[in-house]
Parts: sequence; C-alpha cells; structure tokens
Amino acid sequence: FLLCQFGSNATAVSCITGVHEVIDSQQLERQLTEQFEQFKANDLTLNLTRGKPSSEQLDLSNALDGILQQNYATTDTDTRNYGGIDGLPTVKSLFSDILKTSTSELIIGGNSSLTLMHQTLMFAQFLGLFTDQVPWSQQTNTAKIICPVPGYDRHFSICTSLGIDMITVEMTPQGPDMDTVEQLVKKDASIKGIWNVPRFSNTTGITYSDAIVQRMAQLPKRAAASDFIIMWDNAYAIHSLKDNAMELASIDAFADAENTHNHIVQFASTSKVSFAGSGISALACGPETMAKFKQHLSASTIGPDKVNQLRHIALFGDFDGLTQHMKAHADILAPRFDCVLKALEQNLDNDTATWTTPNGGYFISLNTRPGLAKAVIEMCDQAGVQITPAGATFPYGNDPHNRNIRIAPSFASLEEIQGAMDVLITCIKLATVRQELNLI
Amino acid sequence: FLLCQFGSNATAVSCITGVHEVIDSQQLERQLTEQFEQFKANDLTLNLTRGKPSSEQLDLSNALDGILQQNYATTDTDTRNYGGIDGLPTVKSLFSDILKTSTSELIIGGNSSLTLMHQTLMFAQFLGLFTDQVPWSQQTNTAKIICPVPGYDRHFSICTSLGIDMITVEMTPQGPDMDTVEQLVKKDASIKGIWNVPRFSNTTGITYSDAIVQRMAQLPKRAAASDFIIMWDNAYAIHSLKDNAMELASIDAFADAENTHNHIVQFASTSKVSFAGSGISALACGPETMAKFKQHLSASTIGPDKVNQLRHIALFGDFDGLTQHMKAHADILAPRFDCVLKALEQNLDNDTATWTTPNGGYFISLNTRPGLAKAVIEMCDQAGVQITPAGATFPYGNDPHNRNIRIAPSFASLEEIQGAMDVLITCIKLATVRQELNLI
Repeated sequence: FLLCQFGSNATAVSCITGVHEVIDSQQLERQLTEQFEQFKANDLTLNLTRGKPSSEQLDLSNALDGILQQNYATTDTDTRNYGGIDGLPTVKSLFSDILKTSTSELIIGGNSSLTLMHQTLMFAQFLGLFTDQVPWSQQTNTAKIICPVPGYDRHFSICTSLGIDMITVEMTPQGPDMDTVEQLVKKDASIKGIWNVPRFSNTTGITYSDAIVQRMAQLPKRAAASDFIIMWDNAYAIHSLKDNAMELASIDAFADAENTHNHIVQFASTSKVSFAGSGISALACGPETMAKFKQHLSASTIGPDKVNQLRHIALFGDFDGLTQHMKAHADILAPRFDCVLKALEQNLDNDTATWTTPNGGYFISLNTRPGLAKAVIEMCDQAGVQITPAGATFPYGNDPHNRNIRIAPSFASLEEIQGAMDVLITCIKLATVRQELNLI
Repeated sequence: FLLCQFGSNATAVSCITGVHEVIDSQQLERQLTEQFEQFKANDLTLNLTRGKPSSEQLDLSNALDGILQQNYATTDTDTRNYGGIDGLPTVKSLFSDILKTSTSELIIGGNSSLTLMHQTLMFAQFLGLFTDQVPWSQQTNTAKIICPVPGYDRHFSICTSLGIDMITVEMTPQGPDMDTVEQLVKKDASIKGIWNVPRFSNTTGITYSDAIVQRMAQLPKRAAASDFIIMWDNAYAIHSLKDNAMELASIDAFADAENTHNHIVQFASTSKVSFAGSGISALACGPETMAKFKQHLSASTIGPDKVNQLRHIALFGDFDGLTQHMKAHADILAPRFDCVLKALEQNLDNDTATWTTPNGGYFISLNTRPGLAKAVIEMCDQAGVQITPAGATFPYGNDPHNRNIRIAPSFASLEEIQGAMDVLITCIKLATVRQELNLI
C-alpha cells in the first residue's frame, strides 16, 4: 500500500496515476492534458448515459411477434376486445412471483411502470388515495417525499411535476439511512412517503438488507402522516448479474406482521426483461388502497393491453421460464459491468474515486473527490463521451458534494465501453490533479 | 297516416301496436303483459349494452400478431427500445389523415384515447395546460364543462373523477345547440370546456354540420375563460356504415382562420379499427398547449409502445389501406344496425318512440315517451336483455325526461339482436300502454 498525500501546491505527492508512481503534479497534469487533447482529436461519439438494454438483450424477446400464432383467446377472455382493468390472471400470477406478493391485490398496467408510479402519487396528491383523508394537495403544508440519494432521476421528475417537495437521505450499503428516515417521518406529518428501488438500487446497485426491509414495512406506523406511502419500485427484482446475488426480502411478509399493507405500493415491469418500450407493468398494494386506486384508474382507461400480456405469458411460460430468460440477460450484461469495473480497479485508487460493484441492475455509481463531477462530465463531453449529467441522481439536480457520476454500461458494446472508460478515467485523473493544483 | 291520440283513461285510442289497429288499451296491456311473461320464461341472456366490436370485426386485424416477421426496426428507430414520446413519424402521419390535422402537433398514445382525454383534463385541472394561467382547480370557482346530451358516459366519468362540474346542452341533428353554448361560455369564466364526439356522435350518431364545426372553432374566442378547451373526441372519424355518409369538416381548417388551435384538443384511436383493447391512440392540439402537455406527460411515461405502432402501420399501410379496412368493418356492422332500425320501424310509430338512424359509429339513440326509459330497461332486464342503464347518457346519470335509451348493436350476433329487439319493443309498448293506463 502506498500512502498518498494531497496538497494544494504543485509539488504535492500524488497517487492518482493509478500506477502508483510518485511524480510531480504539474508534470502529471501536462501528461493527462495531452492525453485528453488526443481523445478530443479522435472525434469519438460514445454514450454511457441511458439504462437502455442493448440490441442483443432485446433480441432475446424477438419471438414476441407472432408468438400467439393469432390465437388471442384465453379460456375465458378474448384478449383483443375491451374488458377488465386488472389484467389476465396468469400475468397477475407471474408478477406476484416477481414481487413476492399475493395476486389478489395486484393489477397489470401498460408498457411503463413509471405511469403507475405517477398515477399513485397523482391520485394521492390531487384525488385522495386513502379513505377519510383529504388529498395531500388540500392539506395545510406542501407534501414532501423522502428520496434516498443517489437515486433515480425519474422518481424526482414525478415529484417535481406534481408539486411534491423532496427531502434527501443518504443511501448506505444496506439501504437508506433508516435512523434518519424514522426521525424525519415521526415529527413531520407533511412527509408523505419515501421512494425505494430496493433491489440493485438505481443508482448504487445495492440491495436492501432484511433488517432495512423490515424497518421500511414498519415505517407507516412510525410516520406522523396517516396517509404515508412506501413507494417500492422493484424495477430490478429479477435482474441479477450473478447467481449468488443477494435476494430481497418480501416486504409483504413483514407488512403482514405490521398491518401496513395499505401504505406499501409495489411496482415492477418487464421493461428490462422483454422490450424496453413495449413491456408490461404491475402494481400491488393493500386492499383499501387498491380499491381507491382502481376507482381513480377506471375513469382514465379502457384497461391494459391484454394481447401484449398474453404474448408475455407465451414467451416466458412461468416464473421458472422467466428466471432462465433473465440468466440470458445476465450473460450479456455481466461482461459489460466487468469491463467498467476492471477499468476502474486497474486505473483508479480509492483516494481518487470510489464506486459500487453491483451484483445486478443497470448502473454503477461512482464518486469522484468532492467538487469534481461536473468538471469530469464536461470534459468527457468535450471528448465525445456522454455521461449522465452531474446532479441527475439527486433531487433538484443538486448533488451537494458535486461528486456523483452514474455509469450505465448496458447499451454500448464492450469496445465502446472500453473506449468510453479510457476517456472517463483520464478525465477523472485530470480533474483530480487540476483540483490539487487549484486549477479548478 | 293514422292519427293517434293519447289519454289517461283506459279507453283512449292507441296506435302503439305499430300495426295500427285501434284496440282497447286494457286489452292491449294484457296482451303485451302475456308476451312479456313469455319472454321472461324463455330465460334469455342477451346484451345490447356495450359498444364493443364483434369477434368478426376483431378477426379483420388478426394478422397483427406476426405481421412484423420480427423486424422491429424502422430506418432510424429500434422500436423495441426506450425512446421518443411522440410516436413513429409514419403513425403520426396516419393519424393526421384520420383527424385532418397536421402531424407537427400530434403525438401517439397507448391503447386508450380515454387516457389522453383524462390526462388533458387532469393536467388542465391540477397542473396547468396554458402558459400564464393557474390550473383550474386553483381558481376561485369550480371548473365546469359543457356536455352535449345525450352523450358518452365515460366523458362524464372523467369529469366526476377530477372534480369538474358538468352543464348539459341539447344535441340537435346538426350538433350541439350552439346558441345556448355560446351564451353560456360568454358569461361564465368558470366554464372551461366542452365535450364533443363530432362524427357519428356517441350516442345520437349525428355528424356536426360545417357551420357547427366553424362555430366550435370560434368558441374559445367567445368564451370568458381564456383557458377554454374544446375536447374533440373524434372516436368515429373513419367509422362510416355507408359510402355516402356525411364527412366531418376539419376543425383545424377553421381554427386557422380563428387562431384558436391552442384551445382545441383532438383525439382518435384504433380501438374500433384494430383491437379494442390493444390499439393505438393519438392527441393533436396547438403548439403551446402541446408543449405544456408534453412537459407533464414526460414525467409520467417512458413513451408509447412503438412496436404496436409499427404493427399497425404494417397492417394498414397508409390511409387508403385504412379506408379499405374500415369498409370491411362496415360490411359486418351495417346489417346489425339495419336489423335494429328495421325492428323499430316495423313495430313502433313515432308517437311511441323516436330514434336516430346513424350512418356510422356504434350507437342508436332511442327516446321513449317521457318518464319511461327506466321502466323499459328494468323490464328488459327481467326478460334477460341487458340495455345500458337509464341515465347513463347524461351527466350524473340524470336524464331529466327519463326517456333516453342507448342501443349498441355491434357486439351481438344478428340473431341475438333480433331476439333482443323483440323484447325491447314489447317492453316499450308495454311501458307506454301502462303509462296511458296510469299503471306506471
């Protein structure tokens, strides 16, 4: 182990080259700048911004077109016609396995679980989701929702769009900092909920420990607000990259003991299972909340696309078939994650940057030294590599330490990822040494 | 022509048998009651409630499954993946032909245009759809929307669900009574919009005259509310039953002259073109309103199902192909409408009931004598024939004359329709003679 020291003068000892040579910072800055200028000259167009599945992954579900052989009927439903707001029983059953919940209080949505999340908060905010409670927007104080950070930008967008304020709480490797969460909700009845991506969290990739899941199931009882909602976005419920990836405990099982089912709303989708833009989604919650949700929902739709549901059952069969399908995804995704992680491990030490090593999901979360994320992402952009904008993983786009970078390696090819990582690493090193030299 | 008289005593001259025999009302009542009791004994289960396409109609689009031959790419889009909130250009172009509007301010939705309508009013009510205007719900008075009656129950449900009040205006054979509409909107800034099904209206089946379309395009300028919306649900834009059915004028063309595009929101879908539950939908409006709509929409979805869009283009080709496809629908639907109309014409005179004779759409609207619709529908129910509940075609379920009955002949077979019409006609006659005899 090399002991590293950092200072603000040009002769500071540095270890940020990753090859552990102790060299002069100014010389290093010149070397890295030269490397950076070379990248710029290369006219690259690489992109690590979007958590999109790659073409190879989408190919796994190509059979969807034609899979019904034009047989659109189940034993009791012509899926082509109107009818039914719940979804097909077979599809409900499949999603109950995915979410480890019961089928009785579960409905199938369209191609976007985000829509179901938006509807949940919209109904709660403007129409009321709990019996004997006025909608949040009609209460004295502006509704607030806790957002563990770094988190998913589209969760934040929903809050912003609906006029719901956001409060950040730090993520730990086991899940949100529950001590802080519990203190917050206990004293403020205007805090109405908390966002969660409990398995392979967007963006840190961690999975909530059983203890955290249990405390989350208890949270509605601790909350001052009697209309508190746990938003349980289980987007990556079955998206492990490794066979031994930690399982997520069933929040339903804990909620049984706590009687908090009506305050827990769970979401899942096949967006990263079948086709990203043409999958199916599901929502599960307690019976009273479901009754209210359906009441509002029924005014807004003729029901979900049942033909597409039938296609998905034809493709996956049952939960075992789905699990096999996800292994094929992992075979494609794992090398991409390994490529990113290997590049980071071989070129950056933990004084320069820290990062998560997820066993599933779609993202790697990297922290530079404080104050550098924006500069790094801007440099990458100049060199033709798109990285998710700095701050995107925080509410209001405000990363208070300006250090978090989300790396999304799913869509690009291995070669492209390697090329993008070369640039990213150089930019991190360059930004770090320039910070040491007080140049940024 | 037989002159008919109606009175409240048992010996009144009556012509309600339709065979124009003048017989004693009490005797007639006994005959009809006997007939009715026979129907009840027959243990029928017939249904004229839902505007659902029949299986034969759905069969016309069976090729959708497999039609892509697993080629999911357009020249510039992998339809399987995330991306794009607008929809595919080819699909936008097709819907612009359907709506006779430009493609530039048009977006494609999911399987339910009802969702787009709900979103439009939800955004207007709670989030704001017009620049420099607070949302309707934050203004002093409760927002109101004009509902031409009889109309579409799901339009009313959206208003009820969102807390928007409804004001009724009579439909004429040319469209809504515009004199009344114009007077209303001129003096009350809390009247924020009007619902329309401008072609083959749900439920009367009439098509707005050019003059009415023009006055509708002018209406936002006459309205006291500067955030007034014309809800233009062109659900049956291409759903004619006869070759010579009257065309609907383009409201866009009139809006050009009036500069009211931002206050007109148009909707269409393929729910009664391809699969009722698995079609695609579209929304068109002026540029400023579209920008606001998209701003709110983008928080709530990853975008519409592009694969399903591509399937529809593969099935229809272009607007000419679509027109041919609709002719095949008409060939299936027209005999069903004829069956209903023939039964009415042969058995009821216009003192007993009046009805519309639509050239398209999905409904026939029938008026009994005042005060009889509920009784008729209840009798039909007793005899095993489901008719849309009385009042459903009016806001708050309140048909002030208790006379309107919606007949939906699309789903049942010809034989079933004939059977249901026999019952319906007997119940109308029976209710009418009982009313004459002061029995109801």
